[in-house]
Amino acid sequence: MNITKPTLLVDKEKTIRNIRRMRTKVKQCGGICFRPHFKTHQSAEIGEWFRQEGVKVITVSSLDMGFYFARHGWNNIDVAVLVNPNAIHEINLLAKKVDQLHLLVDTPEIARFLDQNLEKNTNLWIKINTAYHRTGVDWQRKNDVLAVAEILKKSPKITFKGLLTHSGHSYHATSKADIVRIYHETVRQMGEVRDFLAHEGINGLDISIGDTPTCSVMDTFFSVDEVRCGNFVFYDLMQLYLGACRQEDISIAVACPVIGRYPGREELVIHGGAVHLSKDSVTDAEGNNVFGLVAFPDPSGRGWAPALPDTYVSALSQEHGVIKTTPDVINRVKLGDLLMILPAHSCLTVNLMRNLHTLEGQKLTTLQSCGG
Amino acid sequence: MNITKPTLLVDKEKTIRNIRRMRTKVKQCGGICFRPHFKTHQSAEIGEWFRQEGVKVITVSSLDMGFYFARHGWNNIDVAVLVNPNAIHEINLLAKKVDQLHLLVDTPEIARFLDQNLEKNTNLWIKINTAYHRTGVDWQRKNDVLAVAEILKKSPKITFKGLLTHSGHSYHATSKADIVRIYHETVRQMGEVRDFLAHEGINGLDISIGDTPTCSVMDTFFSVDEVRCGNFVFYDLMQLYLGACRQEDISIAVACPVIGRYPGREELVIHGGAVHLSKDSVTDAEGNNVFGLVAFPDPSGRGWAPALPDTYVSALSQEHGVIKTTPDVINRVKLGDLLMILPAHSCLTVNLMRNLHTLEGQKLTTLQSCGG
Repeated sequence: MNITKPTLLVDKEKTIRNIRRMRTKVKQCGGICFRPHFKTHQSAEIGEWFRQEGVKVITVSSLDMGFYFARHGWNNIDVAVLVNPNAIHEINLLAKKVDQLHLLVDTPEIARFLDQNLEKNTNLWIKINTAYHRTGVDWQRKNDVLAVAEILKKSPKITFKGLLTHSGHSYHATSKADIVRIYHETVRQMGEVRDFLAHEGINGLDISIGDTPTCSVMDTFFSVDEVRCGNFVFYDLMQLYLGACRQEDISIAVACPVIGRYPGREELVIHGGAVHLSKDSVTDAEGNNVFGLVAFPDPSGRGWAPALPDTYVSALSQEHGVIKTTPDVINRVKLGDLLMILPAHSCLTVNLMRNLHTLEGQKLTTLQSCGG
Repeated sequence: MNITKPTLLVDKEKTIRNIRRMRTKVKQCGGICFRPHFKTHQSAEIGEWFRQEGVKVITVSSLDMGFYFARHGWNNIDVAVLVNPNAIHEINLLAKKVDQLHLLVDTPEIARFLDQNLEKNTNLWIKINTAYHRTGVDWQRKNDVLAVAEILKKSPKITFKGLLTHSGHSYHATSKADIVRIYHETVRQMGEVRDFLAHEGINGLDISIGDTPTCSVMDTFFSVDEVRCGNFVFYDLMQLYLGACRQEDISIAVACPVIGRYPGREELVIHGGAVHLSKDSVTDAEGNNVFGLVAFPDPSGRGWAPALPDTYVSALSQEHGVIKTTPDVINRVKLGDLLMILPAHSCLTVNLMRNLHTLEGQKLTTLQSCGG
């Protein structure tokens, strides 16, 4: 492949290893449903890699993504975003395209609306806010949960599946122990809500959790019925710095041409900016704001070598990235050479890049590809 | 338009007012070339709005964007990113598609490479680094500039146009006075380099500048020959907080459905996240990290009202935005309602959203649109 502009590469072998590792871990717990989130890759072809590992049920983050994967043969889809009542037409359409559609609500108002407006029996979950404070009923407001639950339980059009949360606050954890603590706290809180509803006569509910940091750090899952993590398919610097993966697990990189060399400032500039990598960043141990780590292409000509020490993407504008590095690295780089950037946040990078290219040269499409 | 998901709206009237204001200001200076940067809108149709205001020459930020606007009838294009020598095939192709192609270099190595590999006479600029420290020869290293200039001057394939800079550090200015100071400093530095080259026998060079903050704040331009700003077409919160525009000049907003209402936390949650708005943010006067300001749809049913006080997008994940607001606003909002988000950085928002919709309901395409 002659690469003359930022190009997203995916190491299929590493990716399948990531899928297999997580799938095996969930399977070993026995009886837990593995429903990976497909928002990280958004790709029909990578979906097939999951299918080959035995995955049959998935999570998506928008109705559009639901339609995309339904078109690609997925029949059991959780649209893990709260229902927008004005999208009821699209919801009813999608429900008819799949065997099992799953939706989330967190108010009696929308539960009632769905009871009145769904055209086909649909699976519903109550979104619970444990401590991330994005969406969901606060887990401590158990009567508020009950108010929603009673409507879902009574509706002939709704199969009330259970309680679902996203412990996104694990992304702000300070250590592996902190992530483990968040897992324990989350399942205790979710269990308390389930027990409360059982006491009120609403039984048989599942508990669904989903963030990649806890799913990666925990050796085993307990007290839950479903696991929905997604980022683990590729991982990224956010997960690396949290201790949720090793560098060799990161399975995508953006190949970027070097267009500027500044030995005096110990900096390189690449064609590769915010429209390729996104403006998400991580803070490293020295307090630097890191938009990407930097590697040479692997000497084998396939993939990339380990990330270079003392070298990182320190600033991004629309099309440019500035790399802080060492005289040694600068001496080894010519203008036009490719550097491989390990992204801070793989979900946003894939969304921007739209297509992926395997190391074998296969082009993979996503929902964001034209015709996707 | 029935909006059920994040949708980018553009107020054509405000946009044309922004174009006309900048174009008139440059024109009044007499003899200065207005070469607006099209990376902010990336849109063939919005390009036509510029053409109707008399614009004939443009700036783009990638070869792909150059090909896109060449296909849409633009014949004089500056690809304002340093030349990647490995893209010489694409460069030669683009050069043949337009009357005048302009390119940037900052090393003797690439100047020599172009002299040897260009197939058609092409306009070259030396990129100068005044104080932004992204790309370019440091303005103080005048002999380094001379080394590049001598190659460009001698080449029969190259028309050496002049010296070009981007004072991107104006984005970190702390006041309007600071922006004015940056303008003065930039033109003084660029003038010194030009004088130095003239003293060495290289005459007739133009000076090109380009950032929206200085172009907006300055009442008149002097000591420059070309102005390349781009963001002014839509403006955004970054420009607003810098004092480079008024709120009523911001001519795009993302219409986002409300999917969560949390009176206890005084927060709303919208469907509208990092894949719509980008992770770029601005810091407001109270030190809050702001990903967007929030407005109601205009009561006329067309466009949006002024931004709500004490209300802003405080956090973004992939598809969700969290809005901090007041009890009064929460009381006025139902689930499913649309809120209009004024973006922190319009260039990245347009790049992500790919299509724009005028208030009259016309769909506008961009380079990022499918078929774009």
